[in-house]
Amino acid sequence: MALLEDLKWRYATKKMNGQAVPEEKLNYILEAARLAPSTSGLQPYKILVVTDKQKLEDIKKIANNQSQVVDGSHLLIWVAWDHFDEAKAEEILLRTGKERGMPAENSIAYKNMLVSKYGPQGKQWQADRMAKQAYISFGLALAAAAEQKVDATPMEGFDNEALDKYLGLNGWKSVVMMPIGYRDEEGDWLVKHKKFRLPMDEFVEVIK
Amino acid sequence: MALLEDLKWRYATKKMNGQAVPEEKLNYILEAARLAPSTSGLQPYKILVVTDKQKLEDIKKIANNQSQVVDGSHLLIWVAWDHFDEAKAEEILLRTGKERGMPAENSIAYKNMLVSKYGPQGKQWQADRMAKQAYISFGLALAAAAEQKVDATPMEGFDNEALDKYLGLNGWKSVVMMPIGYRDEEGDWLVKHKKFRLPMDEFVEVIK
Repeated sequence: MALLEDLKWRYATKKMNGQAVPEEKLNYILEAARLAPSTSGLQPYKILVVTDKQKLEDIKKIANNQSQVVDGSHLLIWVAWDHFDEAKAEEILLRTGKERGMPAENSIAYKNMLVSKYGPQGKQWQADRMAKQAYISFGLALAAAAEQKVDATPMEGFDNEALDKYLGLNGWKSVVMMPIGYRDEEGDWLVKHKKFRLPMDEFVEVIK
Repeated sequence: MALLEDLKWRYATKKMNGQAVPEEKLNYILEAARLAPSTSGLQPYKILVVTDKQKLEDIKKIANNQSQVVDGSHLLIWVAWDHFDEAKAEEILLRTGKERGMPAENSIAYKNMLVSKYGPQGKQWQADRMAKQAYISFGLALAAAAEQKVDATPMEGFDNEALDKYLGLNGWKSVVMMPIGYRDEEGDWLVKHKKFRLPMDEFVEVIK
């Protein structure tokens, strides 16, 4: 029951106490994120880690002044390819194939198949498809943080374009972010409240 | 290290052996999915569970004939709101507020804020934002399956519109699916291969 207990323990921490997450716990969380599966194994995302206090203050302003951005010790930002990037796809498929002892032409053929599939969909569709992959990784990082009894706040409420510009991203787009740290039991209004989820009989529908 | 070990154990199972996943393990996986966080707590998705053999055969055809659809014992399909559904949002925010002893007008005010935020973005953007939430839940279900030593295949390679039509969805769109079952060690070409992920120093970038 370990994972379920961890998921019940975690919540979207609203106020953190400034205590720093130790390096080995940070690395554990990043490792879980890294092990996530992604469409065709493309891994079309990476994580930016921000700890610089001034940068966190700047990003807080871009993120509706949510205090966790500066009260957490590390801010993790998932960024994803801003379109289906053929060169990046080719590189990663070749590396994967090599690891598996497969001929390079197989990887190229697979890449060409993906090009023919993604191409007609347009860049916005492609960016969304890539961003969606990042959410799987993000979910696993949340689970890893909870397992390590590290608090985390899933955060979509920020100005993506402003953040991309601030970070000077090129070929990448910010997707979602997660400050990690420790809850301030006194100052957090949400910690007292019960988690509300749809009951199982509404959440799951068995198709007869 | 439990979660990391589970994530290393799992892989996108290509061939399953037909053995059935016990009910309690299925429920464990669904419970992990249910406990996922989502934007504003909207939980804008649910899971359809398909076990009927004829239906699985039909869905297999919609899913590029991937054999896991029929060789797994259960097919889990995440479906999400097909737009920002104001009525559904209001209902869930009211229920959440009630659970927390908050006045209904707070929930309504919050809902109105969301309407003003989502409204101008258009239905496609809204559908994508809702679908992204489902990926977090999907990631947690993958982790839960691995913890239970149940194999699972993350699957995006299907014709979403055809599946929506087949299932008669109204107000919902299929997002992603996951057959669960047990690997066929003999018949699965992927099980022998090493997992390939970008090394940590490429996956993570520390912003100085």
